[in-house]
Amino acid sequence: MAGEPLKFLCFVLAAGGKMSPKITTELLKQLRQVMKSPKYVQEPVQAYIVPSGDAHQSEYIAPCDCRRAFISGFDGSAGTAIVTEQHAAMWTDGRYFLQAANQMDNNWTLMKMGLKDTPTQEDWLVSVLPEGSKVGVDPFIIPADQWKRMSKVLRSAGHDLVPIKENLIDTIWTDCPQRPCKPLITLDLSYTGVSWRDKIVALRSKMAERKVLWFVVTALDEVAWLFNLRGSDVEYNPVFFAYAVIGMNTIRLFIDGDRMTDPAVREHLQLDSTLEPEFKIQVMPYGSILTELQAVGASLSPKEKVWLSDKASYALTEAIPKAYQYLTPYTPICIAKAVKNTSETEGMRRAHVKDAVALCELFNWLEKEVPKGTVTEIIAADKAEEFRSQQKDFVELSFATISSTGPNGAIIHYKPVPETNRTLSVNEIYLLDSGAQYKDGTTDVTRTMHFGTPSAYEKECFTYVLKGHIAVSAAIFPNGTKGHLLDSFARSALWDCGLDYLHGTGHGVGSFLNVHEGPCGISYKTFADEPLEAGMIVSDEPGYYEDGSFGIRIENVVLVIPAETKYNFKNRGSLTFEPLTLVPIQTKMIDVSLLTQKELNWVNDYHQKCREVIGAELERQGRLEALQWLIRETEPLIRVQ
Amino acid sequence: MAGEPLKFLCFVLAAGGKMSPKITTELLKQLRQVMKSPKYVQEPVQAYIVPSGDAHQSEYIAPCDCRRAFISGFDGSAGTAIVTEQHAAMWTDGRYFLQAANQMDNNWTLMKMGLKDTPTQEDWLVSVLPEGSKVGVDPFIIPADQWKRMSKVLRSAGHDLVPIKENLIDTIWTDCPQRPCKPLITLDLSYTGVSWRDKIVALRSKMAERKVLWFVVTALDEVAWLFNLRGSDVEYNPVFFAYAVIGMNTIRLFIDGDRMTDPAVREHLQLDSTLEPEFKIQVMPYGSILTELQAVGASLSPKEKVWLSDKASYALTEAIPKAYQYLTPYTPICIAKAVKNTSETEGMRRAHVKDAVALCELFNWLEKEVPKGTVTEIIAADKAEEFRSQQKDFVELSFATISSTGPNGAIIHYKPVPETNRTLSVNEIYLLDSGAQYKDGTTDVTRTMHFGTPSAYEKECFTYVLKGHIAVSAAIFPNGTKGHLLDSFARSALWDCGLDYLHGTGHGVGSFLNVHEGPCGISYKTFADEPLEAGMIVSDEPGYYEDGSFGIRIENVVLVIPAETKYNFKNRGSLTFEPLTLVPIQTKMIDVSLLTQKELNWVNDYHQKCREVIGAELERQGRLEALQWLIRETEPLIRVQ
Repeated sequence: MAGEPLKFLCFVLAAGGKMSPKITTELLKQLRQVMKSPKYVQEPVQAYIVPSGDAHQSEYIAPCDCRRAFISGFDGSAGTAIVTEQHAAMWTDGRYFLQAANQMDNNWTLMKMGLKDTPTQEDWLVSVLPEGSKVGVDPFIIPADQWKRMSKVLRSAGHDLVPIKENLIDTIWTDCPQRPCKPLITLDLSYTGVSWRDKIVALRSKMAERKVLWFVVTALDEVAWLFNLRGSDVEYNPVFFAYAVIGMNTIRLFIDGDRMTDPAVREHLQLDSTLEPEFKIQVMPYGSILTELQAVGASLSPKEKVWLSDKASYALTEAIPKAYQYLTPYTPICIAKAVKNTSETEGMRRAHVKDAVALCELFNWLEKEVPKGTVTEIIAADKAEEFRSQQKDFVELSFATISSTGPNGAIIHYKPVPETNRTLSVNEIYLLDSGAQYKDGTTDVTRTMHFGTPSAYEKECFTYVLKGHIAVSAAIFPNGTKGHLLDSFARSALWDCGLDYLHGTGHGVGSFLNVHEGPCGISYKTFADEPLEAGMIVSDEPGYYEDGSFGIRIENVVLVIPAETKYNFKNRGSLTFEPLTLVPIQTKMIDVSLLTQKELNWVNDYHQKCREVIGAELERQGRLEALQWLIRETEPLIRVQ
Repeated sequence: MAGEPLKFLCFVLAAGGKMSPKITTELLKQLRQVMKSPKYVQEPVQAYIVPSGDAHQSEYIAPCDCRRAFISGFDGSAGTAIVTEQHAAMWTDGRYFLQAANQMDNNWTLMKMGLKDTPTQEDWLVSVLPEGSKVGVDPFIIPADQWKRMSKVLRSAGHDLVPIKENLIDTIWTDCPQRPCKPLITLDLSYTGVSWRDKIVALRSKMAERKVLWFVVTALDEVAWLFNLRGSDVEYNPVFFAYAVIGMNTIRLFIDGDRMTDPAVREHLQLDSTLEPEFKIQVMPYGSILTELQAVGASLSPKEKVWLSDKASYALTEAIPKAYQYLTPYTPICIAKAVKNTSETEGMRRAHVKDAVALCELFNWLEKEVPKGTVTEIIAADKAEEFRSQQKDFVELSFATISSTGPNGAIIHYKPVPETNRTLSVNEIYLLDSGAQYKDGTTDVTRTMHFGTPSAYEKECFTYVLKGHIAVSAAIFPNGTKGHLLDSFARSALWDCGLDYLHGTGHGVGSFLNVHEGPCGISYKTFADEPLEAGMIVSDEPGYYEDGSFGIRIENVVLVIPAETKYNFKNRGSLTFEPLTLVPIQTKMIDVSLLTQKELNWVNDYHQKCREVIGAELERQGRLEALQWLIRETEPLIRVQ
């Protein structure tokens, strides 16, 4: 799925489609009332900020957390609303200018981020607020680093950023959905490779190294990973609402509902066993995290530190007095989680084999059905899900399928909806970016196909993208190299012809966890990524998009592995990538004359491996027609002299 | 000259050589006395920091500013000394571990930066200081951003960082050299392309854009560039000690000596003309900058801002109350200076032609003399300077010549001194990294030569370096690309074989100014570089170094130019590089079988251009033997099938 995390993707993402705006006059009136109501605010606030996002800084959020979409109508994945007594303004980026303009009524001013004349939220607030104003925000939603930045600017202009405990949107959102609280899945050692006890031991040793006494787990995937549990509170990400606070001798898990009454979970967490006290998990209500953390904060002696992500909410960060805070951009869990152990990589391999089987079935089916003119983008996406769901240990999709044909393919984060749904044809390029959660792994793959005869120009562009894909996939680089240093390899062939794509090249992929995870990736936009090391898993997905006409992307999930090299400078060792995704790359789309011999060999070797590994599984599953398709699609390329 | 600026190179750089340590017992005793003396400090300080560097954050510093070398004996280009009542410690990086250990006596503890167990200066101070200590530093030497970081850590541990007005080293440095105050050179429009008046107008328009009223010029090359003046107060960098403060209606130049009595300078600056008041330059004493700036600071009304580099000294930054400071990493002068106009690029071209003539003479001479066994590294360096000095408008070298043979070539910042001086032979690789200041431009070129028969392995390594050099030089990339995104192109061929080099690939080059200048460059180490644009000039200098045996580097200075491409995505336009350096790359060192056809063509085209352009100039200058050498060295490469 295309390089950029879809930060805070909301439940409906209908990019590019026509839609009527939400009428917000009454809602804004109500919000402005509660902004002054002593029932909710100590002093009236002259502005209220409604960020995207939940209390865990999740990328995908639950319906109950889509507050910005509720108040404005704009439900794109990124956007911040600010409502003052006079104004209502929405900041979003170039992907969503059109959608936001369509979804919002005249009460709203669209602030187009990235354009030169668009003010920052802080500057705009300073320009519209009366002297000495108070700006309110939910301290559980705003990350500490963002609070710090914003509060500094406001203070220097004579205003105050103030935390409003009760979320003001929730006070007017009468039919707000319940926070989900679904049953948990326990993962045994055959999936995780490491028990939660051993993960706690490793975490405590990292804490001891940094001389911190407490670690606060705020990201949902970090809680899930640490305890070898999964959930389904949020779509696509197999996580559940919870926090954890790990001390050197205590483990506190903050989680709601009757999920802890499930015998399998109790057994898994050894809640009823006689355990050494330092492994005894204290289960506490989700909502009690703040008071518990405040108690921890109050109990600290000088030089005792509490470790939090610098993206943790302002509320939790402030619970610890400043002198005791130890904030880092990446937590030790985030870093440990990124390096997959053998059980996890083997699981990821199995998941990718199953996923490839499903896609061979799908493409074989599309090849037959598309010429009939009956297959729409939505039908194709549903069919992909159907084939995936037939595979063992399938749980759900790992993100909303991007099924796009012709001009829709140029909308990078497109998801088909009835208003935009297009019929696949033999005259257009079809781009499918899709993936699934299996109990043994997470997949994410993009293939670009033509079911008729592609034009020379389409083949040319496809081949540049392929050259970029291979340049990353076959790259050899020293241990310790950061992924962003590989990003230009993916673009070089496009750049040579004056082409490019405006998204990153790759993101970390979780192991039956979030399809986008830190701290590594391949993107020119970051610098603070952690160095790549063997066992990390990222996507490799360059593309090319021509507005109004087509989109091309070739994406594999790849595993970082040690590379054998002729020499070994400073004994550092080298790394390279091994594709986990094993789905044919349509040779019909390749202009062989543009490939070097090395690139041609790469394609042929890759297809040979697809044929062997996926062919065997197709045969085992008795999917003989798809097997025939696979064999046809993996015929070696030959250079025409 | 190798990618990394030699931050604060001191007057003697004798890397790798044996030398006896400086005895510092008495000096340290004296320093510890003045650290307690009410004559110099309001309250005793328990630690005193002696950074590298001068009050302008210059890379090359004058002898009078080499205070850290004076107190410790260690005169490498980077290092910070801290002296407490009990300890004396020196922080330096891996390039200087050996040299620092050799040059310092037992009073000093070497703190090896970059090693895991080495504490930061702040952490070390916290660990050794008694409670509630005061740490002194010269506020004119420490940059504001560094003060901020250090002071925060010390304060949180209960100590205080305090500014000591009088530099304590100066109080005990009885034979401290005078601050240089040499005559100025005026540059007319034929060199600069833009008058200083027009530069002031452009600067004021940038100031108006950002709504700042004052701009403080603190970097020496920025003062020189702004006023189209050059000096020779510091070796290699044609600058002079001065500050400037530019208001919307005033220009203040802080400069000492009788330099302003020179009629040419008075004429150039129109000091005696009747000018519009906003272009009237007020000349003030160098030492009065602080009080003048404090007066500016005191005169400001709310919302009035003063623009400074965030690298300006703490003393000058603090002269402006915090609310009025506008700090940026790159100043508008730094950015404007980087984009050369036609007069400047034409000057740079001329300078590089002259420089190439000198090098053709040198290499022709070396080819004859080296086999006799009489040419040492120092003799070769001197000969290079002799040939350069014969060229028109030669001013001085642009940095200390790196003339190194065999194992010395692996010391990246080597400069030959008698103790290390090695004789060139037909059995070793010779690396020459050298450059000059001409009145029309600055050069910096590295060639690696073998005067006998290179081994297959030496050729292999050289060819990988060459492939990297070409990959950058021939790269096509979109307008707005930052240089650090090109760094990996230079390494790819080395990485494929497990090799690498531990320095950046390129740095900005001034126009008859500093050989290292911001804000652009090509290095994996930076992220905050400004995007490349047409007219910028950088070096392209990958290398490979094998400790104890040889060093290889191939360096050209290249100009960023627009590139013609087949397509033009989003109308952004593309850029590429044009080599300004036109000196043959020794074909004897190339393993042609490792080159692609494209790379081979690049070498042949480059040599063709060298032959045409430099050949014509050699002929014009009647240097016919060197011309014959050039013709031999630029014979086209042929692929042996």
